[in-house]
Amino acid sequence: MKLYKANIIFTREKDQFEIVEQGYVGVDNGRVVGVAASADAFGKEVEDVIDYGDKLLIPAMNDMHVHAPQYRNQAISMDLELLPWLMNYTFPEEAKFSDPRYAARMYSRFVHDLWRFGTMRSVVFATIHLESTRLLMQLFRDAGMGALVGKVDMDRNAIDALHESIDEAVAKNEALIAEWNAPDSLVRPIITPRFVPSCSPAMLRACGKLAQKYQLPVQSHLSENASEIAWVKELEPESRNYGDAYDRYGLFGQTPTIMAHCVHTAGDELELMTRRNVMVAHCPTSNLNVSSGMAPIRTFLDRGVKVGLGSDISGGHDLSIMRMMVYAIQVSKMCYCRDKSKHFLTLSEAFWLATKSAGSFFGHVGSFEPGYEFDALVIDDADLNHDNYSLLHRLERFIYLGDDRNIAVRFCRGQEIPEPRLHN
Amino acid sequence: MKLYKANIIFTREKDQFEIVEQGYVGVDNGRVVGVAASADAFGKEVEDVIDYGDKLLIPAMNDMHVHAPQYRNQAISMDLELLPWLMNYTFPEEAKFSDPRYAARMYSRFVHDLWRFGTMRSVVFATIHLESTRLLMQLFRDAGMGALVGKVDMDRNAIDALHESIDEAVAKNEALIAEWNAPDSLVRPIITPRFVPSCSPAMLRACGKLAQKYQLPVQSHLSENASEIAWVKELEPESRNYGDAYDRYGLFGQTPTIMAHCVHTAGDELELMTRRNVMVAHCPTSNLNVSSGMAPIRTFLDRGVKVGLGSDISGGHDLSIMRMMVYAIQVSKMCYCRDKSKHFLTLSEAFWLATKSAGSFFGHVGSFEPGYEFDALVIDDADLNHDNYSLLHRLERFIYLGDDRNIAVRFCRGQEIPEPRLHN
Repeated sequence: MKLYKANIIFTREKDQFEIVEQGYVGVDNGRVVGVAASADAFGKEVEDVIDYGDKLLIPAMNDMHVHAPQYRNQAISMDLELLPWLMNYTFPEEAKFSDPRYAARMYSRFVHDLWRFGTMRSVVFATIHLESTRLLMQLFRDAGMGALVGKVDMDRNAIDALHESIDEAVAKNEALIAEWNAPDSLVRPIITPRFVPSCSPAMLRACGKLAQKYQLPVQSHLSENASEIAWVKELEPESRNYGDAYDRYGLFGQTPTIMAHCVHTAGDELELMTRRNVMVAHCPTSNLNVSSGMAPIRTFLDRGVKVGLGSDISGGHDLSIMRMMVYAIQVSKMCYCRDKSKHFLTLSEAFWLATKSAGSFFGHVGSFEPGYEFDALVIDDADLNHDNYSLLHRLERFIYLGDDRNIAVRFCRGQEIPEPRLHN
Repeated sequence: MKLYKANIIFTREKDQFEIVEQGYVGVDNGRVVGVAASADAFGKEVEDVIDYGDKLLIPAMNDMHVHAPQYRNQAISMDLELLPWLMNYTFPEEAKFSDPRYAARMYSRFVHDLWRFGTMRSVVFATIHLESTRLLMQLFRDAGMGALVGKVDMDRNAIDALHESIDEAVAKNEALIAEWNAPDSLVRPIITPRFVPSCSPAMLRACGKLAQKYQLPVQSHLSENASEIAWVKELEPESRNYGDAYDRYGLFGQTPTIMAHCVHTAGDELELMTRRNVMVAHCPTSNLNVSSGMAPIRTFLDRGVKVGLGSDISGGHDLSIMRMMVYAIQVSKMCYCRDKSKHFLTLSEAFWLATKSAGSFFGHVGSFEPGYEFDALVIDDADLNHDNYSLLHRLERFIYLGDDRNIAVRFCRGQEIPEPRLHN
């Protein structure tokens, strides 16, 4: 067993931080044995003590919704409305990923940037392309970082270069599943119908069957904006709501499911979501940038719906999940302004969303409780800690003010993760 | 005359960028002579050409509302509501500035951080203390950076240590005015009643007289949140609105005036503000963090009200005016969601707010038009420009994604500004 000594901060429950000043995390075989104030608590099987001095040690970040092929489009043309932006930027960019060399260049930068910002696990949209999706998975594996990577399935309402037949989609998925679906693998496939407007009923049905047959998780988009919801109602007239349009095809909690946005989820959709234990990937910057609105996260939490945070590059512009915590709090404060019964998210709640709550989608990830995989960040906040701040204020300042410069060391599943290589 | 060669971007009007790829800015005696595509345009009086290669050259940032003594409180205890936060954090912190040594340490860090983020002009609240306010002004002067610095005036509803008599307030103001009110000085005093709840009618009257007598600008807070507005109504029952409560004392446009927040400004207050040519310091992060709401900036612009952006440390958590542009756009998108007739701010509008519109409070500042003081930033965005982006996209990526690492050189009034010294 190895011991890591530092100022340890994590959340067990959403309402409070666990803080051990100059404490120890014991790690064995990639998993946390426990946290204690003294090394003696771990008995005699300690091989090594790594002392991080006055630094902070926190769980690593999880990005629950991100489009890897939109890395190049990060933070450009934010003035456009959704439709021209998809047609002029998003789809043409994704079409470029038919070229594995282009994919290698962009995806290696993407994985590198996740690393920079301390995101050790991600739930990722790739494109429809087999070769470049395989390459993205390999880049995650080479980096030692966890990811659920989805080859995107879509057959309508985009551009020709991004449409494929159902047979093609199934064959590519099965190729990736054969190669990558080892039960304990850090990098695994996730079934990824882009969203209802992009998928014919037959494509949705094929996706549901794949998820069922291989017992794979599912990701998609849900109730992001009003015109999208109206469109889905037209496309799937028999569905009672947008969520139900997935549910009818076995894509809404029949296997572990995560849905991005859910800005307008309420009523029977929320009811179904709760019953089916579908997780929400809350993407507050994207929802602001794309003028979608403000997701009712307090309502979700009150109902027991699971929530994680997502950067949603390139609807979102920022890969930092620390920034997502800040935005999640700020958006919740605007919801609170409208309805004082919905209290805004506290810092510990936002932190819990980004770590333990999100991490539950990967298994035991996102906390330092015994049995959790040791995904962690060592935070060197010396530049921010110029005047004797409390540990909690130091954490808050790192979250609000810090950046990649403050992340000194990153761990995923017990391994220290070095800087990933860029491909040119 | 000196020429600076780079990719030049600035705004003349809010609706579009002026872009000169590999162009020249001519600067003489601290002021812009002109911008041209060729060096020949400037004739023979060119002494020197400084070539910044492929970098961007943009106007420097202006922070129109910031509390220097709350630097230590930046990004802590954001979970608190306004009143406990003022009483437990803000006021006790300001009381510490009776000690000039503490002030030197904190204020030098504050000025250093403004420099880091490329903010070359600021409109600043200090505290009630003469010695430390003088010191803050000296730090700005030593740095070569522009500032309107306000000794804060207040005599009620805070804590004893921050109350002073009217005679004291006037005497301290007049001491600073005597020392600092040279017409062309980069650093000048601004009359600063904290806000109506902190100032008795006699204090407000004294402030108005000082502004009038010395023809000095005025800053304060206006219509930040609903309970504050109700309180002002109680304290100044004869005023028709919060703005009018300043106006009655000569503090609302009788001399150049800037009011922070204006989240709830509408109706006759907006009418008065327009007529009096009062500038709004829009502080979007602060308004989110403190749950104040979303200021109606599109309405202000439609009415011809002048607007600049402010960090409002420590209600705001971020000193970067680039981040304020992003937040201003995002907040305007939420307003747009509620009312589609209020189109969200575009990138050029946000940039114009932060540069030329804000800069007008300091004279001819914030543009590269002839006669403007040369306040500028050289942006090295090599790390962000990994794939042949257009100049406009490069600027957008710097604003959304960049940070202090991308600011290679800073100019204020024609002088290159080196890194300011920290005091310990």
